[in-house]
Amino acid sequence: MVYTKGLVQMFRGVFAPIPTPFSGEAIDVQALCRNLKRWESTRLSGVVVSGSNGECVLLTRKEKETLIDLVRQNFTPSKKVIAGTGCESTRETISLTRRAAALGADAALVLNPSYYKNAMTSHALRAHFLAVADASPIPVLLYNMPANTGVNMPADLVCELACHPNITGIKDSSGNIVQIAEIVANTPTGFSVFAGSGSFFLATLAVGGAGGTMAVANIMADECASLQECFERGDIESAREIQIRLLPVNDAVTRRWGVAGLKAAMDMLGYSGGAPRMPLQPLGAEESKKLRGILVSAGLLKS
Amino acid sequence: MVYTKGLVQMFRGVFAPIPTPFSGEAIDVQALCRNLKRWESTRLSGVVVSGSNGECVLLTRKEKETLIDLVRQNFTPSKKVIAGTGCESTRETISLTRRAAALGADAALVLNPSYYKNAMTSHALRAHFLAVADASPIPVLLYNMPANTGVNMPADLVCELACHPNITGIKDSSGNIVQIAEIVANTPTGFSVFAGSGSFFLATLAVGGAGGTMAVANIMADECASLQECFERGDIESAREIQIRLLPVNDAVTRRWGVAGLKAAMDMLGYSGGAPRMPLQPLGAEESKKLRGILVSAGLLKS
Amino acid sequence: MVYTKGLVQMFRGVFAPIPTPFSGEAIDVQALCRNLKRWESTRLSGVVVSGSNGECVLLTRKEKETLIDLVRQNFTPSKKVIAGTGCESTRETISLTRRAAALGADAALVLNPSYYKNAMTSHALRAHFLAVADASPIPVLLYNMPANTGVNMPADLVCELACHPNITGIKDSSGNIVQIAEIVANTPTGFSVFAGSGSFFLATLAVGGAGGTMAVANIMADECASLQECFERGDIESAREIQIRLLPVNDAVTRRWGVAGLKAAMDMLGYSGGAPRMPLQPLGAEESKKLRGILVSAGLLKS
Amino acid sequence: MVYTKGLVQMFRGVFAPIPTPFSGEAIDVQALCRNLKRWESTRLSGVVVSGSNGECVLLTRKEKETLIDLVRQNFTPSKKVIAGTGCESTRETISLTRRAAALGADAALVLNPSYYKNAMTSHALRAHFLAVADASPIPVLLYNMPANTGVNMPADLVCELACHPNITGIKDSSGNIVQIAEIVANTPTGFSVFAGSGSFFLATLAVGGAGGTMAVANIMADECASLQECFERGDIESAREIQIRLLPVNDAVTRRWGVAGLKAAMDMLGYSGGAPRMPLQPLGAEESKKLRGILVSAGLLKS
Repeated sequence: MVYTKGLVQMFRGVFAPIPTPFSGEAIDVQALCRNLKRWESTRLSGVVVSGSNGECVLLTRKEKETLIDLVRQNFTPSKKVIAGTGCESTRETISLTRRAAALGADAALVLNPSYYKNAMTSHALRAHFLAVADASPIPVLLYNMPANTGVNMPADLVCELACHPNITGIKDSSGNIVQIAEIVANTPTGFSVFAGSGSFFLATLAVGGAGGTMAVANIMADECASLQECFERGDIESAREIQIRLLPVNDAVTRRWGVAGLKAAMDMLGYSGGAPRMPLQPLGAEESKKLRGILVSAGLLKS
Repeated sequence: MVYTKGLVQMFRGVFAPIPTPFSGEAIDVQALCRNLKRWESTRLSGVVVSGSNGECVLLTRKEKETLIDLVRQNFTPSKKVIAGTGCESTRETISLTRRAAALGADAALVLNPSYYKNAMTSHALRAHFLAVADASPIPVLLYNMPANTGVNMPADLVCELACHPNITGIKDSSGNIVQIAEIVANTPTGFSVFAGSGSFFLATLAVGGAGGTMAVANIMADECASLQECFERGDIESAREIQIRLLPVNDAVTRRWGVAGLKAAMDMLGYSGGAPRMPLQPLGAEESKKLRGILVSAGLLKS
Repeated sequence: MVYTKGLVQMFRGVFAPIPTPFSGEAIDVQALCRNLKRWESTRLSGVVVSGSNGECVLLTRKEKETLIDLVRQNFTPSKKVIAGTGCESTRETISLTRRAAALGADAALVLNPSYYKNAMTSHALRAHFLAVADASPIPVLLYNMPANTGVNMPADLVCELACHPNITGIKDSSGNIVQIAEIVANTPTGFSVFAGSGSFFLATLAVGGAGGTMAVANIMADECASLQECFERGDIESAREIQIRLLPVNDAVTRRWGVAGLKAAMDMLGYSGGAPRMPLQPLGAEESKKLRGILVSAGLLKS
Repeated sequence: MVYTKGLVQMFRGVFAPIPTPFSGEAIDVQALCRNLKRWESTRLSGVVVSGSNGECVLLTRKEKETLIDLVRQNFTPSKKVIAGTGCESTRETISLTRRAAALGADAALVLNPSYYKNAMTSHALRAHFLAVADASPIPVLLYNMPANTGVNMPADLVCELACHPNITGIKDSSGNIVQIAEIVANTPTGFSVFAGSGSFFLATLAVGGAGGTMAVANIMADECASLQECFERGDIESAREIQIRLLPVNDAVTRRWGVAGLKAAMDMLGYSGGAPRMPLQPLGAEESKKLRGILVSAGLLKS
């Protein structure tokens, strides 16, 4: 463990949790590199690799390592690379986090274990995250995603963990703005609270968040960055306009069509998305048409 | 029906959903009038009478009428009186709404019916609210309170209802800030969206809300008004400080101890709260002590 | 209070929670009496009046009293009449229970209060039910209906309340067969546990239940009685065949189309159902057609 | 794929989903073999290896293979060995299922993928299970465990999948007895429906189930077998007595303390349980004492 967290937030701004493009059964390296090249030209602060949007739970351990390596090697050093390393077992989480560090990741985004829901008490989650944070050579960001895990990380546990010198932030995808406000209010200054979805990005900033780590940032990176810039210079009206524009696009690539929707939107917008891995299903023709309509309405595509 | 909604929001600012003080089995008129006198001297825009915090579901029809009458007679005409009139049946809702209008209420706050949860489709809720809005001589505010009703009013239904000329706003207690943002984004300018709890007041303003109708406003009326004033003049930092100060007090008088907690806090702070009606239970000694501690920490009481 | 519960169960067998027929805005007395006449010729043990299926929450206090009176006056004394008397406030529940007793009801079925969900702790529910049972001149049956109330009565609270001499049973509509088994296992012999829906009637009998109080019994009274008779003489195979036949019909008149579905099915089968009160909506043409198909498949109607 | 399902159920009776004993970080082979020896002398129909109770999600792929191999090599050929092979990705599930078959497993118990909850539509789950069943050399048993996965396999999907010749049964841990009855009613005769927890074993048999696959069978194997025998010879009373005795023990080793509780109970009863893997936490002293009390009350231990 390195003692990393001080008075200044190490992580701020907009991060894109990038999808993993496949070519048949394998990772499509060239597609990935094309995407990275394009994200380099945006105002993203960085990317998250092997997260929920990267289909992490459908990847083998080896594939995760390959991905982290590829992204860090091929992405500008001026932007951060955060690796998703949360696994169900503590020891696998530690092992993957160490490997991510060795591969050059700037931080680890660690989703809480969740299969044994009743057993995931604050006691068990605390022990898990302290063990991971102690063992990690890189800063740890907590990741709360109850819509996928069925477990919510309680605000008081998060605030307690935030005192660990190697736990430097949280991506909260709960959308529970009260919880997000409580976390901001009760964690040290150097701790970064990120909106985990674009739909509550402005609200998160309003209560003191440090930025957003959001699927929609893959395709609206500069819009997201502008929202935060407007907000920070006091232009709430403009920030709100962008927030409203984000809403339907964000909904399409998260709650509604998920990773398959995000990948389809990327294909429509000139990125390389492709099909998700089974059991995820690609969008059907009808859904694709609706998605295209949403992108057109948002001004991202010509009709 | 009067066609009331134009380009200007009729309702803005901070409203207190006031508790109903009892003396034994009866409404304590003097206690109520004392409280009203005190609220007059605050920057509240108005009060809600016979709402959830007023123990509406524990009152008889006659008591509800008495309450509305008392409050309108004894409260300064310069502030609004909104009457809670939602009942399970459409016809009782209409009948009570008309009576509230006759008694001088400025608007009706109408909670959706919810007992037959599976049957409360958008189709049924639409028919219900249109019938009420058509029949009401005063503006109708929708009231969404899924924590109590177990039914969430979907954003698209709210937006559709918002086009009715006599439906002028919503109190949304869901805490779902994405839903609140979607409602603001897709309703006419004259439609007012209120935070239904103090814990997400700032977030609601950030996405374009018109104010708050919140239990905590009974005891922190001017703080709530200041939060909105700071926000509206662009001083987010100060608004956030007040929001953070509100959080534990709001939690104590809503999610944690509910109406009993609110009444106990009022007693501690010089208002007349008293005991709730059964089956609600008054706070025990241990809980009262914790509540006092929370009020002290928030600077509302000397220790 | 009369001390009513001994070693023998006072209530056993199949009860129909009857709908309330309306003619325009008023209760349709003649339709009600026609239905009662027909139920008299079945093997029902009795009926529940002013319960969930009777649209109790859409009735005024006066209408509830009228209904209880009408049913007791017009139904054979050889069968029981149970009155639904649960209200949100303890005092209204007591007052209505006493009135039901005066009108000749054999027992009161008391749904737990539920609006203030967070406040409905075991402490509050215990105080409520003990107050009601102490005050009631007739036996009290608990009524657990979490699908409508959003509150589950915990098994250990039920078992504790079952020791009160005037609390003689429960209608459990949760469908949680483990909870039902735990209640049977931990309550006195004289305490009756009823399946609250026909879909888990056989399972409830298997774990020791005393019968069922189920919407489907309005239209399949003798089939339900046969199921219990088969079960009790050890003919599980035949009981299971009836159970399987009940499933789709039960689903249609509960979870799927609720009271409106039950009333429509009654109309199709020669009873007098009619339309429900708003906000409940009658079945549309398409739904009616599907319902008819279900009744035909179950052998209740000719195609 | 072999076409395995005919008119006769291949799987009936009581199965124990066995825990995985560890010695430090490694699987404790000797402890496992001691346990297997003891289960051989019971009336279990077989065991499930690498299921939820085997901490499957905390094992590496290699460990899962080792376990399946060890159990099949060391367990009497007269009893069945079922391997838990469900993974989030379809291809990993197929690959592990094939490996389990090669290692001699009699069937695969396949938990549905669940991380991407919104995407786990019937369409996606159907495609997943058909792909697995087509590819599997051994019979496939579906595994529905919504308490852990947050996804319920709908009854109509299960009934549709049951028509695949290689899908021969389901372990349903939902506890939803209506759903279980619907599945029995609408699947072919050769399809086996298993109670996934001991708390609703009798109810499952009553509606036509083929047996149970239940944590409590690890420590009450013969009692579980007796329950089914009593039921099948029409002695419901005795079956119910055993069911009631099972309830508190079952609760302790599932909902309440989970795998850690099961392992602790095994240690108390002469099996080799040991500690679970992190993030699961072993029972504390206070919990152990309560567990011991439960085992004493159930007559499994002397006080």
